[in-house]
Amino acid sequence: MRPSRREWLRVGLHAAVAPAIMIPQARAYDIGEIEAKLAKGNGIDGVTKDDLPTPSLLLDLDAFEANVQRMASHSAEAELELRPHAKTHKCSEIAKRQVGAGALGVCVATVREAEAMAAAGIGGLLLTSESVGLNKIHRLIRLCERRPDTMAVVDHIDNARQLDEAARASGVRLNVLIDVDPLGRRTGVPPGSKAVSLAEAVDRLTGLRLRGVHGYCGASSHVKGFAERKAHSAKYMAPVLESHAAMLKKGLPVEIMSGASTGTYNIDSDLKGMTELQVGSYVLMDVDYRAIGGRGGDIYDDFRPALHVLATVISKNHDDIATVDAGLKAFATDRDFGPEVARPTGLTYAFRGDEHGALMLADSEREIVLGDKIELVVPHCDPNVNLYDRMYCVRGDHVQQVWEIDARGHV
Amino acid sequence: MRPSRREWLRVGLHAAVAPAIMIPQARAYDIGEIEAKLAKGNGIDGVTKDDLPTPSLLLDLDAFEANVQRMASHSAEAELELRPHAKTHKCSEIAKRQVGAGALGVCVATVREAEAMAAAGIGGLLLTSESVGLNKIHRLIRLCERRPDTMAVVDHIDNARQLDEAARASGVRLNVLIDVDPLGRRTGVPPGSKAVSLAEAVDRLTGLRLRGVHGYCGASSHVKGFAERKAHSAKYMAPVLESHAAMLKKGLPVEIMSGASTGTYNIDSDLKGMTELQVGSYVLMDVDYRAIGGRGGDIYDDFRPALHVLATVISKNHDDIATVDAGLKAFATDRDFGPEVARPTGLTYAFRGDEHGALMLADSEREIVLGDKIELVVPHCDPNVNLYDRMYCVRGDHVQQVWEIDARGHV
Repeated sequence: MRPSRREWLRVGLHAAVAPAIMIPQARAYDIGEIEAKLAKGNGIDGVTKDDLPTPSLLLDLDAFEANVQRMASHSAEAELELRPHAKTHKCSEIAKRQVGAGALGVCVATVREAEAMAAAGIGGLLLTSESVGLNKIHRLIRLCERRPDTMAVVDHIDNARQLDEAARASGVRLNVLIDVDPLGRRTGVPPGSKAVSLAEAVDRLTGLRLRGVHGYCGASSHVKGFAERKAHSAKYMAPVLESHAAMLKKGLPVEIMSGASTGTYNIDSDLKGMTELQVGSYVLMDVDYRAIGGRGGDIYDDFRPALHVLATVISKNHDDIATVDAGLKAFATDRDFGPEVARPTGLTYAFRGDEHGALMLADSEREIVLGDKIELVVPHCDPNVNLYDRMYCVRGDHVQQVWEIDARGHV
Repeated sequence: MRPSRREWLRVGLHAAVAPAIMIPQARAYDIGEIEAKLAKGNGIDGVTKDDLPTPSLLLDLDAFEANVQRMASHSAEAELELRPHAKTHKCSEIAKRQVGAGALGVCVATVREAEAMAAAGIGGLLLTSESVGLNKIHRLIRLCERRPDTMAVVDHIDNARQLDEAARASGVRLNVLIDVDPLGRRTGVPPGSKAVSLAEAVDRLTGLRLRGVHGYCGASSHVKGFAERKAHSAKYMAPVLESHAAMLKKGLPVEIMSGASTGTYNIDSDLKGMTELQVGSYVLMDVDYRAIGGRGGDIYDDFRPALHVLATVISKNHDDIATVDAGLKAFATDRDFGPEVARPTGLTYAFRGDEHGALMLADSEREIVLGDKIELVVPHCDPNVNLYDRMYCVRGDHVQQVWEIDARGHV
């Protein structure tokens, strides 16, 4: 990215010997101009990362495509269906590529995400969080009218009855999975007799169509060390799988058993009874997942970091520190660590307020000056994507497309 | 908020004795329907909080208006100008009301915020972060063409020269303040001779018009205890104010001395030389500021919490815990504490993932059931607002307006 900065210095700072228009305006695009240019075709006009506003979200297409392909290959080899979780990316363009690589559809966490995916033509939707309250139920039923293959989860008979009544009132039959709790006490009916009883009760409701079991063990996903993670998931998923088996034994139509995370995709696929994977983060990756350890070592590198924040050095008044324009509003802050600097190498980052971050320069590979562009791996991909309206898709330094994060927004 | 839930139970659950349409669809609005209704007038059709999608951002109009008025009165009494920071709310409707109550204009943290405020007709803009790099400089100059009273800050001569050249190339004169660092090493030129030299150099650049000094001591804003905060701010602002005085002594046209935060509004207004306050959070407030202590005690209650997140109880399978639909994507997570439950009382909240939070029910004032609505005070208002596209303005339970958070988005 150095040439453009040098070009700036040439045409900008040394203006005493430069022609009248010293700001090369054609390369300082606002979002409307960039999108107009990109709409004409891929990578048109040579738009590069240097031309982008900052802070911006970058999607590395090479890494992204490799991640999509690797998970698709894994699920094919494991003979499991794949319904990746779109809560990670909230982007229908990504969902299209996941479906294009063989996924059944996508999971979603909110009715808003479901509506956005449906509007973009994505089917096979599984809403993995309970739809409770008038607003969510009403919208879910309307979605079901348009997309009859939509599936929801239930963990309580009161909610099941509400969904049943709403479905019957609208003349639809809503597909549901029983959400069984792997003892995380977040959502889900406890496994065992309570889960089986709920499934039986749901199966009797004529507005609902029982399809299977949803069992997501979030607590396993980030257990460090492959062996430790495997043991954790086996322990906590066992009661869920036993509940599913008990339902099958009773003749209930629970053909779907959905679960697994990016951390357990190659662990849970060996669990007896699983039929599909709802992995999410693998397409983008983040600092958090990199640190859980893989089969081969301390770094979990089955998938490549594909999501970066692009920032600009906006203050440099000290030898050992510089300030960039990306802070608490540019990164997810829910972990006890921040982003990692991918480029240039040798820099460490620390939050310095809502719009600012500090770069520690002691080990920098080169001198850092005003206007330098910095790329950082996001700490936690799901909430990080949620901060942005669009991602710039790059191959090397070239911007090829802009994808809207069309399922974000709390509405 | 109980009547609506009871109404739901009546028309929903007890459908065996209810008429055919059991979901009262007219009250389960999506955002388009709500906005269409509200566009017709204030509080039309009796839309209440119960009708809103969740998680949603609520603005309590009574508290908000009291906060705007209290700060306006303070600055009038202190004979200081007020230019509130719009980075807090990113909402031009709020900015309009601040200006309506006497503010000169608003501060902004990004060129994107400046563009949005200008588009909404707000003048008197002060961009408090350095504009470095082609994209920001180009957009700042274009803004200056439309709004010649726009002001920017500089902390480095290289950047000042770039701004100067860009301004001259476009035939505008850009108003600038010297950003002087109260030793936080985030942005700003160090106080003293470096600051004065930069001011002198900027004053010689014909494309720029030197207007004053910007000195923001973020480190003071959240010091706990009024006396401790006062001592902290006095210590760290002293070198900034001395630099400003030295510039004045040299005859430099630095008539503006801008600074202060919500935590120091009634501290820094006593500092000799201050001319205007750039307070931000006071309009909305949050858990963070409530805890810094006020003149009167441990709770800082000069301003009222006006911003809440509305959530729905979506899972209730245990006696001691319930799950709501607001998690890491619904709240700022940059502090080491989460939101506080405002209504109903006696509940405590803990994060349970991207879309979920847990309510501990031990001390609840009443039984919590599926579908209950919960209101939570946000942990840190600025990044919390940044997560949402709109805020619902309520008076009591009634929704009166929907305001777009039109300056959010990283573009």
